[in-house]
Amino acid sequence: MPEFLTLLPPADALQKLLDHLRLAPVPDQVDTQRALGRVLVSPVIAPHPLPEFPRTTVDGYAVRAANTFGASESLPVYLELIGEVPMGAAPKMSLTSGKCVLIHTGGMLPEGSDAVVMLEYTQPARPQEIEILSAVAVGENVIEIGEDVKDGQEVIPPGTRLRPAEIGGLMALGFTSVAVARRPKVGIISSGDEVIHPGEKPAPGQVRDINAYTLSAAVEGVGGEPVFYGIILDTHQEMRAAAERAKAECDVVVVTAGSSASSRDLTSQILDELGEPGVLVHGVNTRPGKPTILAVCDGVPMIGLPGNPVSALVNTHLFVIPVVKALMGERTTRPQPSLPAKLTINLPSQAGREDWVPVTLESTPEGYIAEPIFGKSNLIFTLSRADGLLKIPADATGLSVGELIEVYLM
Amino acid sequence: MPEFLTLLPPADALQKLLDHLRLAPVPDQVDTQRALGRVLVSPVIAPHPLPEFPRTTVDGYAVRAANTFGASESLPVYLELIGEVPMGAAPKMSLTSGKCVLIHTGGMLPEGSDAVVMLEYTQPARPQEIEILSAVAVGENVIEIGEDVKDGQEVIPPGTRLRPAEIGGLMALGFTSVAVARRPKVGIISSGDEVIHPGEKPAPGQVRDINAYTLSAAVEGVGGEPVFYGIILDTHQEMRAAAERAKAECDVVVVTAGSSASSRDLTSQILDELGEPGVLVHGVNTRPGKPTILAVCDGVPMIGLPGNPVSALVNTHLFVIPVVKALMGERTTRPQPSLPAKLTINLPSQAGREDWVPVTLESTPEGYIAEPIFGKSNLIFTLSRADGLLKIPADATGLSVGELIEVYLM
Repeated sequence: MPEFLTLLPPADALQKLLDHLRLAPVPDQVDTQRALGRVLVSPVIAPHPLPEFPRTTVDGYAVRAANTFGASESLPVYLELIGEVPMGAAPKMSLTSGKCVLIHTGGMLPEGSDAVVMLEYTQPARPQEIEILSAVAVGENVIEIGEDVKDGQEVIPPGTRLRPAEIGGLMALGFTSVAVARRPKVGIISSGDEVIHPGEKPAPGQVRDINAYTLSAAVEGVGGEPVFYGIILDTHQEMRAAAERAKAECDVVVVTAGSSASSRDLTSQILDELGEPGVLVHGVNTRPGKPTILAVCDGVPMIGLPGNPVSALVNTHLFVIPVVKALMGERTTRPQPSLPAKLTINLPSQAGREDWVPVTLESTPEGYIAEPIFGKSNLIFTLSRADGLLKIPADATGLSVGELIEVYLM
Repeated sequence: MPEFLTLLPPADALQKLLDHLRLAPVPDQVDTQRALGRVLVSPVIAPHPLPEFPRTTVDGYAVRAANTFGASESLPVYLELIGEVPMGAAPKMSLTSGKCVLIHTGGMLPEGSDAVVMLEYTQPARPQEIEILSAVAVGENVIEIGEDVKDGQEVIPPGTRLRPAEIGGLMALGFTSVAVARRPKVGIISSGDEVIHPGEKPAPGQVRDINAYTLSAAVEGVGGEPVFYGIILDTHQEMRAAAERAKAECDVVVVTAGSSASSRDLTSQILDELGEPGVLVHGVNTRPGKPTILAVCDGVPMIGLPGNPVSALVNTHLFVIPVVKALMGERTTRPQPSLPAKLTINLPSQAGREDWVPVTLESTPEGYIAEPIFGKSNLIFTLSRADGLLKIPADATGLSVGELIEVYLM
């Protein structure tokens, strides 16, 4: 049986990992003003309606709608002006039939009024008398109590990642602090005898650590907290000690292995030793990223990423990011940023395997054109030249030139 | 002449503002590890090639390609095994004709070798002798010196917003710190006599400040630094004092006016007084957001946003965010996140005016369906229910049911 039939597709591999986790985000009470991008742990329930009083949406005159019946430019209605609504306070007057009150956008309707005539459809007649040139219906130009939000309504569901609009919504209801999921700590262990710190000068045969930093940046971007455990030599003792420490201190542990098979094998062996059930997935049916390892050790998800940079970053998106989001309880009902684009060339692929190809996007009057960037997956600048990744699904044997595809923005 | 013909379209209004700015981002040297989302001020030039030595992309045997000529399973070639390349060091041996060296993925090719035969196409014959079952071409399974990046090559252009891939690229070249644009300080002044701090309980007629917080969150999201100047009473003296202080201390000043016309007029008057040339645009041909004010005072961009929350946030995206990005020198060649979707209903609009409509997106097997959310623009939860905004261009008189449209994700 060819190997690709024995490897799990990425989505199934991820699900297998998630099935072994008890997902209960830890609440963290933060200032709403600082909560952008954090994930809500409990529903936000409106403690009062919004607005709390009927407001006008225009500048004009608060009236009883019934008094304006039939009003037109040729047959105006005349109403007695009995005052002006102050901004930011309840009007003191109450409106009876035949009267009107000057009111400004956002102002509170006086008792007895039920609509507002826009200034444009009025003109002063005599002192204290206004000519109404257009009829209004009950509720016209008015936001009623509770029209935005009703008392007790769930306004933001748990698992929502807070955007500016939700920050504003929380403030509108007086929630100046909010319970969000604590940032998951993501332990990052670099390995590989050839790998050195980026601050050092590589001797022949050595390369600087890249994966720890693409990974930490990606983790930070979704609200995780990267914790670095340094570059560990490829010995069982050193690697196991680092992995044990990271497992005790973090919510998820990621090992970026060295390029060599022995470095990957060591990672796999240690992830299998550290706790139950150990390695769940060894090898995923995707390119790049076949050697990815997924494990759960005593409830802590542990992921072994391939050593080469493109493969490591693509698989960070496929596995690490979804796990970090799941640990925060994020429910990703929102569409992911992607763009439709036309492919410039034929892209063959192996049936049964999911391929991810870095592409550049060029805007044309007919839409975006996607140009695959070919490069060995060891080339980090392949990715920094890319605008996004396109997926060749496992059930396809490739994509054709001119085909309209989805490109996931990076 | 109808008013909409005298108002500028949003893109022209923005350009008019930008034309009056001297855009020179101030460099800020930061740790590369902390530079996610920051904008590069100068090009990144490779100080050395990448890789710096020829590396193998597979596990196998380093050979002279010429020695494998004609090798096949039925007619193998036999090569003498003279050693193993250690990971992370230069191989000590050098390869002569008829020899091979065991090498692991990522390892450095020994002198004299020019290709690698994958382990799968070899088998041990006698001690120190390897059977080669497949021929390789020169360079096969090898990344040459400079194949990723050449010495002196510009690898990241200035104005790039750094993603995980660029962070990795910088580290690969040994740049552990990087010059990025200083975060522009965005002064935020709230006004409106009806507006109170979100922590207070509104009396009848009062509403909590929303716009300062949606605005600050949006600014923070693109790397600006919000600076709050509090809620200012709608008097000339107070507002002018706050605007002057903000102008002296910040790179851009935004006033979120109260809902009333007098509050907006006061904003406009003060932005016109504070320096040359003063107000450039008073009113933009868009809905929501017509009352937006754009000014430049002695080189400082100053923006007056409409008071109602939906209008304020939409216009934050149209004007404030592009200005903050321009101050950082960001060159937005990257496509913005958007999604194609089918419209569920007819949407009329006024020719000549650009409309922005909040929509929810529903995923179906045929693609996304966009459902407009109708709500008066004073309703903040209209936006928190929305997945994105769709634009009805100024030259359209509306959009038709079933039409394929672009939705900009929020």
